[in-house]
Amino acid sequence: MARQPKPLVRSDIAYSTPDRIVVRGKSLPDEVLGHMNLGDFAFLQLTGKAATPQQSAMFNAIVITLVEHGMTPSAIAARMTYAGAPESLQAAVAAGLCGLGSVFVGSMEGACRMLSETLPYDGQCDDLEKLAVDTVAAWRARGTPIPGLGHPLHKPIDPRTPRLFELAAQNGMSGRYVTLMQLIGAEAERASGKALPINATGAIGAICCEFGFPWRIVRGFGVMARAIGLVGHLLEEGERPMSFELWQRVEDEASAHLRGEA
Amino acid sequence: MARQPKPLVRSDIAYSTPDRIVVRGKSLPDEVLGHMNLGDFAFLQLTGKAATPQQSAMFNAIVITLVEHGMTPSAIAARMTYAGAPESLQAAVAAGLCGLGSVFVGSMEGACRMLSETLPYDGQCDDLEKLAVDTVAAWRARGTPIPGLGHPLHKPIDPRTPRLFELAAQNGMSGRYVTLMQLIGAEAERASGKALPINATGAIGAICCEFGFPWRIVRGFGVMARAIGLVGHLLEEGERPMSFELWQRVEDEASAHLRGEA
Amino acid sequence: MARQPKPLVRSDIAYSTPDRIVVRGKSLPDEVLGHMNLGDFAFLQLTGKAATPQQSAMFNAIVITLVEHGMTPSAIAARMTYAGAPESLQAAVAAGLCGLGSVFVGSMEGACRMLSETLPYDGQCDDLEKLAVDTVAAWRARGTPIPGLGHPLHKPIDPRTPRLFELAAQNGMSGRYVTLMQLIGAEAERASGKALPINATGAIGAICCEFGFPWRIVRGFGVMARAIGLVGHLLEEGERPMSFELWQRVEDEASAHLRGEA
Amino acid sequence: MARQPKPLVRSDIAYSTPDRIVVRGKSLPDEVLGHMNLGDFAFLQLTGKAATPQQSAMFNAIVITLVEHGMTPSAIAARMTYAGAPESLQAAVAAGLCGLGSVFVGSMEGACRMLSETLPYDGQCDDLEKLAVDTVAAWRARGTPIPGLGHPLHKPIDPRTPRLFELAAQNGMSGRYVTLMQLIGAEAERASGKALPINATGAIGAICCEFGFPWRIVRGFGVMARAIGLVGHLLEEGERPMSFELWQRVEDEASAHLRGEA
Repeated sequence: MARQPKPLVRSDIAYSTPDRIVVRGKSLPDEVLGHMNLGDFAFLQLTGKAATPQQSAMFNAIVITLVEHGMTPSAIAARMTYAGAPESLQAAVAAGLCGLGSVFVGSMEGACRMLSETLPYDGQCDDLEKLAVDTVAAWRARGTPIPGLGHPLHKPIDPRTPRLFELAAQNGMSGRYVTLMQLIGAEAERASGKALPINATGAIGAICCEFGFPWRIVRGFGVMARAIGLVGHLLEEGERPMSFELWQRVEDEASAHLRGEA
Repeated sequence: MARQPKPLVRSDIAYSTPDRIVVRGKSLPDEVLGHMNLGDFAFLQLTGKAATPQQSAMFNAIVITLVEHGMTPSAIAARMTYAGAPESLQAAVAAGLCGLGSVFVGSMEGACRMLSETLPYDGQCDDLEKLAVDTVAAWRARGTPIPGLGHPLHKPIDPRTPRLFELAAQNGMSGRYVTLMQLIGAEAERASGKALPINATGAIGAICCEFGFPWRIVRGFGVMARAIGLVGHLLEEGERPMSFELWQRVEDEASAHLRGEA
Repeated sequence: MARQPKPLVRSDIAYSTPDRIVVRGKSLPDEVLGHMNLGDFAFLQLTGKAATPQQSAMFNAIVITLVEHGMTPSAIAARMTYAGAPESLQAAVAAGLCGLGSVFVGSMEGACRMLSETLPYDGQCDDLEKLAVDTVAAWRARGTPIPGLGHPLHKPIDPRTPRLFELAAQNGMSGRYVTLMQLIGAEAERASGKALPINATGAIGAICCEFGFPWRIVRGFGVMARAIGLVGHLLEEGERPMSFELWQRVEDEASAHLRGEA
Repeated sequence: MARQPKPLVRSDIAYSTPDRIVVRGKSLPDEVLGHMNLGDFAFLQLTGKAATPQQSAMFNAIVITLVEHGMTPSAIAARMTYAGAPESLQAAVAAGLCGLGSVFVGSMEGACRMLSETLPYDGQCDDLEKLAVDTVAAWRARGTPIPGLGHPLHKPIDPRTPRLFELAAQNGMSGRYVTLMQLIGAEAERASGKALPINATGAIGAICCEFGFPWRIVRGFGVMARAIGLVGHLLEEGERPMSFELWQRVEDEASAHLRGEA
């Protein structure tokens, strides 16, 4: 082992000694507790860097946006799981998280990926309008919906989007990725003739590009945020359960035709 | 349904209309984004109430304490899962959360439960010292370790504990539960003749009682905090993996005796 | 390591060499494939022993009984998860399994535990009737339902129970634990004045005692069986989804009062 | 709803009445228990059809092959989870299953997909050799490994493959898909100049095509099989734990450089 400069099993996140606990280079008791809020500490844990005040404001807003989305399939799965194993709240949260895949988180991840691949972080571009036109044309040619545009309920606009862009402007993060997303939205509406407002996942995808985040990290924001939301749902389920009622309804309806009742 | 005042399937957490998103009675775009940090929003989501500045400071510190605990079995499980399904980061976080049960989170939950059952929120007590003596005697008679005391690594004190109690004092939450925990710790040391410092889970259990939280909610804090920590571990695992090396080592060692090598 | 007879990380289940794969001492290609059915191999994997023909018949029947129970909360959780992450079928099965806790599997585990603690595997008893009377009295004094008795739907008898007991008799496993369970059922009906037929979990709990299984293993049977059942549900969900319809209904109903509609 | 011939929430898998339990059209007590083994019942649950004796022999062998693969990352994740939450065996199995994604199950799924897309179930082909040459050329042009070929340990052949193909021949399932897989393996060896034996996942992928299974179902076989294997690992972990030892080693090694020890 003497000549092995880097151990094969190695983590740079944290370490402990009898009298110290250090996370990402900061003493947890002395430099973190009482000095950071949870969003800032998440930023530190994930990126290894302390957030600037502007990054703190923006990052907290992004993650908060992802915490609670109503009675989603994820929340229903968590509640159903809790009904069977109330002694394992952690497993009910886990069950709810398992569904945060391509269908729900895919859009946010997709918007961030589309923007960062269209306009690489280390590259330059003079003509964002041309990029937007080309991007929309390419997605339309593939016949897949452009990520980050449109919403089944929130019409004509998604109320989170202008607020997120406003915060981006206030915190110096309304740069070329926000502009590109807006140009793509406008071009998509023009090309399709349909109302396609930028939704919250599109706004967040663009702002994540302003941060310079790799697109793969974005799913992690959704997962950690939703864990908070799901704990809230499970506490409510513990006090006012809906799982057994839902179970009974589904059981009755789903097999009625087999029982000869339908 | 006309006379049904309360629907059987009902949630008070959030609702959406085309132009509004409201969580716990607050407009997400207008009253939350840009106005709250993630810890405050978690407090709102879980309790239904807005945190006071003191509650905000204390609650953020509690949850932050629970985010990152090094290369725990939970972190190893998450990394191992990610190695097999890197396309499903959410499932790797879920796998890591599944292990936050009686062994690791039990201590914090247990401390909160012990204190709140010893000294009910709606009750009174003039003699905390007698309560502490009786409590220690009862746990010792059962032969089970008192939750919240002692730590295998952090000796003679857990460096998080004085800082958490300091923050409690600064924020008006150093009341009878903190005192009771400290009295229990002192009595346990006296009765056992061993050093049994209050660890972070004991401090958090006591402060959660100061908040008036039911003990069952405390596990939820640990789960949502660790979700953040696990995302950090998975991002690192994606960049510098240790899973395959660990797999190889375990596979080789575990079956060496069967292969006739040991 | 020279004097270490047993490695600290050791498993006796399986090993591989370039030309061999051996599980529980049997060559997988030569002694297992084509020679055992899945239930027999599960028995081998879990117990380390090859099932006798009688054990094979009984064990396959027990596990099969646990595979499919209709549109349970577990199945709904799995389907909801699949709706969000169809690329991760494994995570949807995992979500469904997470709910197999105290409420649903508890009864089977509880029956096995009650019987094996009442009548230890290495003990003797001449008076099963007295044991039954004492057991029922003890459970009634605690005010908790006796595990393995009664069923909300299957009345007056659970149709699986006589069949499982018939198979136990045919395979030489209708011994004192089956008798004790039947005596407990009869005494519980007498003492309560209510119809309390032995349900499938009671029958399985008793037969697991005839096998000599430790009660903790019983939950594992339920978990592995349900994994099969859940895969069936997810394949159906992929072809004829119900998740989005359920989601919409729950979302609409749960927050109607918040939107001012109820 | 009167004119709705098919309910929106509908399942054809099972139903219960007070005196009946019917799965896939068969009475569980009368037609299944004592008449089928677990593999046959899994076949019924997943496909809706009773297996012929030949299908039974082959299907049981396929699923058994997937049960136990040693101390895989999946098994390690399950054991680590169990260490933290021994009261939730189901969650530990769930954690282990979460990692059965693209890396480990992908190969089997990929082989089945490659073969069924190359040679559709409803199509004809006179020249399998040409198909094999074209397929290998296409995969090589993409620079991705051909699924189902090669194995890091099992050289020069995977001992499961000849046995699985032997069983396929004995049960009338050694048809054009098995031939195509063998031709692809031979052509890949010729084109690459490397030994690329068909591994177990390639053999299973080909035989699944002989069954006519859609490639998406194949992952489900792996998931349900591994659930059985993981229960075996957890029972062993309960009796002879390795988790805490592994945890300690990883914790020590991973952060040694941060503590200034490396």
